[in-house]
Order: sequence, then structure tokens, then C-alpha cells
Amino acid sequence: MTSPHTDRTARVSRFGEPREADLPDDIRATYEANRAKLGFVPNVFRAYARRPEHFRAFMQYHDVLMKSPGGLTRAEREAIIVAVSSENACQYCMTAHGAALRILGKDPILAEQIANNWQTAELSPRWRAMLEFASRVNEPGFAADDAEIAALNANGFSDDDVWDIAAIAAFFGFSNRMAGVMDMRPNAEFYAMGR
Amino acid sequence: MTSPHTDRTARVSRFGEPREADLPDDIRATYEANRAKLGFVPNVFRAYARRPEHFRAFMQYHDVLMKSPGGLTRAEREAIIVAVSSENACQYCMTAHGAALRILGKDPILAEQIANNWQTAELSPRWRAMLEFASRVNEPGFAADDAEIAALNANGFSDDDVWDIAAIAAFFGFSNRMAGVMDMRPNAEFYAMGR
Amino acid sequence: MTSPHTDRTARVSRFGEPREADLPDDIRATYEANRAKLGFVPNVFRAYARRPEHFRAFMQYHDVLMKSPGGLTRAEREAIIVAVSSENACQYCMTAHGAALRILGKDPILAEQIANNWQTAELSPRWRAMLEFASRVNEPGFAADDAEIAALNANGFSDDDVWDIAAIAAFFGFSNRMAGVMDMRPNAEFYAMGR
Amino acid sequence: MTSPHTDRTARVSRFGEPREADLPDDIRATYEANRAKLGFVPNVFRAYARRPEHFRAFMQYHDVLMKSPGGLTRAEREAIIVAVSSENACQYCMTAHGAALRILGKDPILAEQIANNWQTAELSPRWRAMLEFASRVNEPGFAADDAEIAALNANGFSDDDVWDIAAIAAFFGFSNRMAGVMDMRPNAEFYAMGR
Amino acid sequence: MTSPHTDRTARVSRFGEPREADLPDDIRATYEANRAKLGFVPNVFRAYARRPEHFRAFMQYHDVLMKSPGGLTRAEREAIIVAVSSENACQYCMTAHGAALRILGKDPILAEQIANNWQTAELSPRWRAMLEFASRVNEPGFAADDAEIAALNANGFSDDDVWDIAAIAAFFGFSNRMAGVMDMRPNAEFYAMGR
Amino acid sequence: MTSPHTDRTARVSRFGEPREADLPDDIRATYEANRAKLGFVPNVFRAYARRPEHFRAFMQYHDVLMKSPGGLTRAEREAIIVAVSSENACQYCMTAHGAALRILGKDPILAEQIANNWQTAELSPRWRAMLEFASRVNEPGFAADDAEIAALNANGFSDDDVWDIAAIAAFFGFSNRMAGVMDMRPNAEFYAMGR
Repeated sequence: MTSPHTDRTARVSRFGEPREADLPDDIRATYEANRAKLGFVPNVFRAYARRPEHFRAFMQYHDVLMKSPGGLTRAEREAIIVAVSSENACQYCMTAHGAALRILGKDPILAEQIANNWQTAELSPRWRAMLEFASRVNEPGFAADDAEIAALNANGFSDDDVWDIAAIAAFFGFSNRMAGVMDMRPNAEFYAMGR
Repeated sequence: MTSPHTDRTARVSRFGEPREADLPDDIRATYEANRAKLGFVPNVFRAYARRPEHFRAFMQYHDVLMKSPGGLTRAEREAIIVAVSSENACQYCMTAHGAALRILGKDPILAEQIANNWQTAELSPRWRAMLEFASRVNEPGFAADDAEIAALNANGFSDDDVWDIAAIAAFFGFSNRMAGVMDMRPNAEFYAMGR
Repeated sequence: MTSPHTDRTARVSRFGEPREADLPDDIRATYEANRAKLGFVPNVFRAYARRPEHFRAFMQYHDVLMKSPGGLTRAEREAIIVAVSSENACQYCMTAHGAALRILGKDPILAEQIANNWQTAELSPRWRAMLEFASRVNEPGFAADDAEIAALNANGFSDDDVWDIAAIAAFFGFSNRMAGVMDMRPNAEFYAMGR
Repeated sequence: MTSPHTDRTARVSRFGEPREADLPDDIRATYEANRAKLGFVPNVFRAYARRPEHFRAFMQYHDVLMKSPGGLTRAEREAIIVAVSSENACQYCMTAHGAALRILGKDPILAEQIANNWQTAELSPRWRAMLEFASRVNEPGFAADDAEIAALNANGFSDDDVWDIAAIAAFFGFSNRMAGVMDMRPNAEFYAMGR
Repeated sequence: MTSPHTDRTARVSRFGEPREADLPDDIRATYEANRAKLGFVPNVFRAYARRPEHFRAFMQYHDVLMKSPGGLTRAEREAIIVAVSSENACQYCMTAHGAALRILGKDPILAEQIANNWQTAELSPRWRAMLEFASRVNEPGFAADDAEIAALNANGFSDDDVWDIAAIAAFFGFSNRMAGVMDMRPNAEFYAMGR
Repeated sequence: MTSPHTDRTARVSRFGEPREADLPDDIRATYEANRAKLGFVPNVFRAYARRPEHFRAFMQYHDVLMKSPGGLTRAEREAIIVAVSSENACQYCMTAHGAALRILGKDPILAEQIANNWQTAELSPRWRAMLEFASRVNEPGFAADDAEIAALNANGFSDDDVWDIAAIAAFFGFSNRMAGVMDMRPNAEFYAMGR
């Protein structure tokens, strides 16, 4: 059971990564902040660093979606990412956001169930409604009808919450595809985090 | 053949739009710039204005993808959007970006053929390779293998061009889904532009 | 943004077309009638003229479906064709019947919306029920159950109307595939008609 | 193992059938010709007789496709219908044309294999190429590329043969859907014919 | 209409079969029991005989599913196999179990209808509920929800009956795939049995 | 992030489980053997114990597939199960066999990658060929052609190895569906094993 990569973590993306010394200051600061917090730099940063303008636009949108105040908890937002990334079978995102959900959700078994298949995970009604809608958004050709929006409203999700579920699901569908074009590899550290 | 909407252009998004007088200065400036250039404010701006932070993050990423220097012409970037939006059957994006492609590409018949079906459009080999890859990116569960990247390189696309094709295809797959959640309606002005 | 075809309208079908001088009288008369009415001969006639018996059988069935008295207006019949041809992504039929729908329906914006995606077009309840059933017919393995026929009856469609919706949808699914085997190209004149 | 229909052959189509005494002369003559040849009137005639203009257009096109001189044998044409009708799971067409193929092909075991799954039937290379293309035509969104037409030509199929394969496959895809809208029931006589 | 196999019944499986003289006693006894009952040895036995441990495990599970006492009749169990094998287009299983259903069900026309398409077969409500659930089980990613189990219970199926429907459907989905890897060919005798 | 089940491990299957005191001796012995080896009784045993004949047939076939001598290592057999169970999104099997693969394969990161998506896991060429074929077997309507069997032979897999890959993939497709009908829940112990 040997891998073709002698050093599994050596590859970040098929498009390579810039030397850290060559990075713009703001990106290097992001690297340092991650090392301080996590002990390593997630490969998504190292891969996007090749294109600093893309790095900045991605991270800014990410933060609007994941860190803005709103009706969804941080764990709920990560659960949406894990469910969608699992449907899209995204190797990097399932691993990195699976770790985040285990930690932020404080229920690693439920996090694993969602990574396996949100439909058969032991979800609360609120989470089931939320992930069912995220999965709908993830379908090709998605367009919501009034009835499903009304059903979400009736489940306690405001219009802005519905927007946020859809935006997180769809933005990480975009992110899944970027990981797919780059063959982005997960850092080895993610696998054991939060178990 | 009557529509249920008495005034077809009255609806922008199912989530409504803010009063223009209440907009932050930067967003109002965008409105004014669009009126000066196009004669109207595309509904994507009016719909996103409800959430200024989302508006700004979306437009910044949009501009990185569509206006940065790079190996793809502006018309090629619009062709990617039209091809992907057609596969996703996005009413707003096919209409708005169909108009942009007709104008920027200076070949409205080819633009219409791509909106109908890029596979049977009368494409140059370069455009065929580009749109075939954009369509691959748009598939659920997309992950590129080395051979298809090498084939794109052999067709004259640099690694950054491949990144850009994928990023435009995937970002507008995200945008298609946001139009789908909002039921974003195309401005009537788009339909006749560039014919 | 150049096309590989130096003269885009030169190609009619991959199987070529007969010389007009060699045509049987009835087919030449059809050409002349089209020139008188439209100013040109649609390529579907020029392509089918290679096989006069097929030409005649196709046109006769076409006229039964499209020109017979019945519960569906001429615009409704064209809307069925455009919706099905869009689902089948038929380059020729979307273009030729898109033009017909713009003209006969007297609402070019709605015609364009149906060509983009009938599901998110601004349809009356009658048209929505009609196109939803046409789309069902277009599915592989279609077989109607009693409930959906009853629902159409309740929407004001007689049994003969239901037959007509299905027959138009299915016959043009056949026609879409014939355009697909021939690589039938749309006449350039269609693109601007009825805008 | 009882059927809900007390008299299985009593139902022809959900839309009923006209009284034979009320039929136009040409359709009654068709009934009589079928009784003379087969001993019964296939339900497709009885179902279409409700709409005489449709009856005539259908039968005329049928005869052009199935009885015209050409490169395909009568058994080959029936094999295309059986393969496509099986993919579309059409109850009436599998039964009626399954019987025809058993008789005309003089190999009832091969006929049954094609009805089950043409891909694993014990086909000659010519029949395999022919049914593979018929199956391609049957796909939604079918459009042939030059390479597959050239491959068929290399297998001994002329352009008119390719046209005929596609036309038979697509026309009976239309016919399958008409059987689906009518819930057309097979005559009991077909099941044992040619075994 | 000739087959590439000069002797159609000569091939049993692409992996061949052992010489009968070399078989273990219990497997030879099975051969003899089949010859006594049917007049021939079904190819599934001859193909599995290559791997005696697999032969025994397969036949033991088969007998538990098909011959144990329970709420489903023997004909109902065969109907499940035929419906699932038809969805999976399994050449061997449609032929061998089609024959079994024609004989055990004592209604060869209904058996043929189920082989063609259970959805449009003339089924009793009990059989329709049973085959609808078998078809659900056959879907990739199947997981039942409480509502569909309750609906089956309400239709008179006990929990053990539901288990049996699912187990038969899923086990023969396994068997269909084994026939697919072996290219298992049906014995010629099956085709005419029970007509 | 609360689960609707107050005691997550309390539910084994929607069909319940027998009291251990009521079990036949051989099944109770299996429980005890599992407690001795793992410290708990996997829920698959507790769920199947409701039907002792099914329990025995399942376990016997399981042992033939997983414990017989042959060309595939025990880890390779588990990798096939994990890959197929992931494609079928089987909550129980991904969890239980994921744990087995982490332990037997001695490479928990690779095990997790296969559970996420075998296609983007860092596989050796042998494992890639093996899992690609297992995934083919898992497709509805699978039938192998000679070329893919020859390619596996050329990769060092004997005919019996090919049989084993197919049998394991297809048998656990059956097992996935049985877990789906039972709503079989994974034991909590599995999640942390072998990390």
C-alpha cells in the first residue's frame, strides 16, 4: 500500500507554488498567521499564492461568507461546505473542511457522517433542511422555486440565511473545481485534527 | 402569450433590492457608471446591493477574472461564461453575458451558436479546446488529470491560461447558482443588444 | 473570433444537397414558396431534398402537427418545439424555430426566455403546464400515468390537445436527431428575424 | 399474479378507439389487410385511427423508412427499432417489433438478446456498428461528429445508410413516446409470434 | 443475421468451466439434479463451478432468499429478479429468470411485460408496490426513509417482507454484475421455456 | 449541533435486533469472538441476527470473498469495499470498512483519501487499475468487454483476481443496499479506530 509520492506533503498543486521569500507582504503575513494558529500553512494558501490577485479575491470572499455576522453558526457554515464537497468528491476540501467541522462543531462523529453522506447523517431538522437546500443549490441547472424558499423561511431561515446557505454552497462548488484543476493535495496535518 | 408579470422588468430578484438613496457611496457610484456606459443598471448589481459586502467581494473577484491582463481575450472570457451558463441553463447569465459576447466578440451569430450549444457551434480549434475544458470544469466532481492539462498546454494555453479558464468557468457556475436562488431576472435591454 | 467556415452559410448538411435544377417539381415549388414568403430556403428543405420521399413524409407530418385545426395556437406549437429543442441543444431547431416563435408569439423576450430555459421563463400557468408535459415527453423512457393526463385535462387541455403536445414534442425530438446526424446548419437569416 | 385488467386485450390506448364502422375507407382497408395477413389488427392502428390525419402521416413515414429500397435489410431495420425501443423501455414497441424481428430475422434467440440488451447480444460486427450508432442517435442531445460518420462509412454503410439508421432510430424514439402518452397496450397475439 | 459464435451454446463464461469429471461431488450432484429436473445444467452453475467455494456460497444464499418460507410467493421473488435484471440489462438473468417467472407465475404475458418494463406492466397494486421498492433498492446510493417503509407496511408487507424484497433485489444486482464480468451466456433452452 | 438520537449508538437497524439471550449458539459465539477481538459487536452482526439464516449466508459469503487465499491482499480487498461504498455513499460500510482499511493497510491517510474519492487518491498503478475496475463493476448495467479484462491481465491480475475484484465490489454493493434498507448505524467505536 505504497503511494507514488515519496513525500506525500511535498506536492501542493500541479501548478507549483512560489518561494515564500518572493511573496508579497500581505500573503506572507497570512502564512505566518496560519503557522501561529494551526502550526502549518494550509495548501490552499500555498497554491493560490502563485496568483496574488486571485489569492486576495478568494480570501476576501471567503471571509465575507464564513466570518460575517449572520443567522448561521460557524459550524453550520462548515457543515454546508463538507456536504457539498462530499457531493463533489473534492479531496482537498473534504479533508481541510472536515477537520474544521470536527473542531468547530464539537461533534466529530456527526462531522464524519456528513462527510460520508449528509442524507443518512443523524441531523437535527434544522440541519437537514439546511443541507438539503445546499445540495439542491449544488445541482447543475439549479433554480429555486418560491415553495422551497417559503419552506426554508418556515423552518426559521431568513431570506439572508437562505442567501448565505446558497452562497456558501455555490462558492465552495467553485472552490472544489479550483482544487480539481490544481490537483490540490491536502496537508497531512488535517487528517488527524479534531478526531 | 401573456406573462404573469405585468411589468416584466419590475422584478430584480425574489429578495428585492434596496432603495437607491440608501446605498453606500461606492455602490451608488457603480450604478452611475453603468448608467453612463450602458444606459441602465444591470440587475445583478441591483440584486447584490442588498448585501454590500457580498456586492464588493463578487465584483472584485469578477474584475480579477474578467479584466486582469492574461492570455485570454475579453471575448474568450465571455465565451466561457456563455457556454457554462448555457449548460447550467441560467436565464440571467445567458441573457446578460450573451449580450456581452455579441458585442465584444463582434460575431453575433457565433455568440448565439455558443449560447445554443457550444459543441455544435462553428468554433476555431482554440475556442473548441477552451470551451471543452470549461465544460469539463463545470461537471460535478471535476478533477483534471495530467493528460488533459498537457493537451491544453500543447494547444497554446499556459498554466495560467488553464487556471483562468477553470476559474472563470467555476466562478460563473457559482454566479449561475446565485441567480438561481434569487430568481434574478434579466433587464429587458439585454435582449436586443449587439444583434 | 473567426469561424473555420469561410462562408458560414455555404454548408447545409454534411450529406450535401442536390442541385436545384435536379429537384422534382413539388420540391422545387416548395423552394419557391419559401423564397416568396421568407426570402430564402430554410436549410431543412435543402438538406431533406437529397431524399425526396423523406422530404415529403417529413413535411406532410410537419403540416399535420403544426397547421391542423386544434386547441393549441400556432405560437403554442412553436413554443413546444423551442423548449424541446433547447433541452436537446439542437443548433438548427433552436435557431429556426426560435425565429418562428419570436414572430408568431409576438413576444420576442418570452421567446428568448423559453429558448434559454422554459423552467425559468415568465410563463402563464397554461404555458407552464404545456411545456412541463412536453419536457416529460422528451425524457428517455417516457410513459404517462393517469394522474398527469388528468392534471392536463383539469388545466383545460382536451385529450386531443394532450396528444398534440406529445406528438409535437416527440416529433421534433426526432427532427432534432435528424439535424444532429446531418450537422444541419441554420441559415444566417434566422438569427435576426423577429428581434 | 392477477392483472387489474379482466380482459387484457380490451384496452388499446388511454384515449380509446373509434368504432370500426365509423372509420374512413382507407383506414378500414388497412384493418382488413392486417387481418388478412396477421389475423388481427395491431393496436397501433386502432389507437391512431382516432386521428385519421395522424394515422396517415405516421404510416406513410413508417413505410418510407421500413419498406423503401436501400442498403439495410428489413431485419436490420427491425433490429434498430427493437434496440432503441428497449433503451426507451417501450412496452408496445418491444412487443410488436420484437415479434417482427423474430420473424424477419429468422433467429429468435438473437432477436430476444437484442430486446434484452443489444450491447451483450451476439452480434456480427456490422450489426454491432449499426446498433451502436442507433443507440447514439437515441441519446438526448445527439449530434454526430465527422469521425463517427467516417467510421460507419468504413464499415460499409453509405451516407444514405447512415441517414436511414438515424431516421429509423429517431422516428421510433418518437413512436415510443407516442405509445407512452397513449399507454398503448400490445395485442396478446404478439407475444408468441415467431418463437 | 449470423452470430459470431458458430455454436451459440458452446460458451458458458469468458473464464471457461471445469471438466465435469473434475468437479467435487456436491457440485456434480447439483448438475445431475438440474439435468433431471430441467434437462440441462444452467450456465450459472457451470460458470461458478470454476470456484467451488464461490459456487457453494452463492447457491446457499440463493436458496435462503428464494426458497425460505416467508410472506412472498415464489413467483413474486422471481418477479423482483426479472424487474431488477431488466433495469440492469443483464442478458443471462433476464433470460434464465424470465423463463422461471413465466413458469412459476403462470402468466407468461405478464412475465414478458415485467421483463420489458415493470413500470408499464399490468400489475396488481401489491406487485406495483413491491417492484417499485425493488427498483428503489437497485438505485446507486439507495437508503430507505421511514416513510417508504411505512407505506410498504401499509400495503401489507411485514418488516421481514421488506427485508426480503430488498435482499432479493440487491443480491441479484450482485448476480447481474457477476454475469457481466463473466460475460455469462444464457443456455439456448431458456428462450422457449414457459411460452 | 445536536443529534435527534439521545444515545447515538442505541439504534442498530430500523428493524431492531434480537435479545442476545435468544440467539442461536453459533451467532452468540460470533458476538463473543468479536468482543474478544474488537471490544464490541459490530452492528452488522446485531442487525443480521434478526434473521439467522441470512446471518449465516452473508457471513459465509463474506469469508469466502475476504479470507480465502488469492492474489489480492486483505488490504486490497478492503480498499475495494471502501471505494465502492463511497460511490454508493453507504454510511455504515464507509465507517466500518474505513476503519478496517486504516488498520489493515497501515496507511490511514491513503485510506481516508480512498474513502473521499479513489479517483484523486495517491494510488499505485496496481491499486488504480483495481479500483477503476471495481468502480466499473459498481455501475448499473455493468458488462465487461474483452479489452478491459485483457488490460487487467496485463496489469498482473489473473482471471481469478478479476473475478475476486468484481465479486467483492458487487457483493458489497449488495451489502450497501442492505445497510440502506435497514438504516444500519455505525458503532461509535469505528470512527477513531486506526487513525
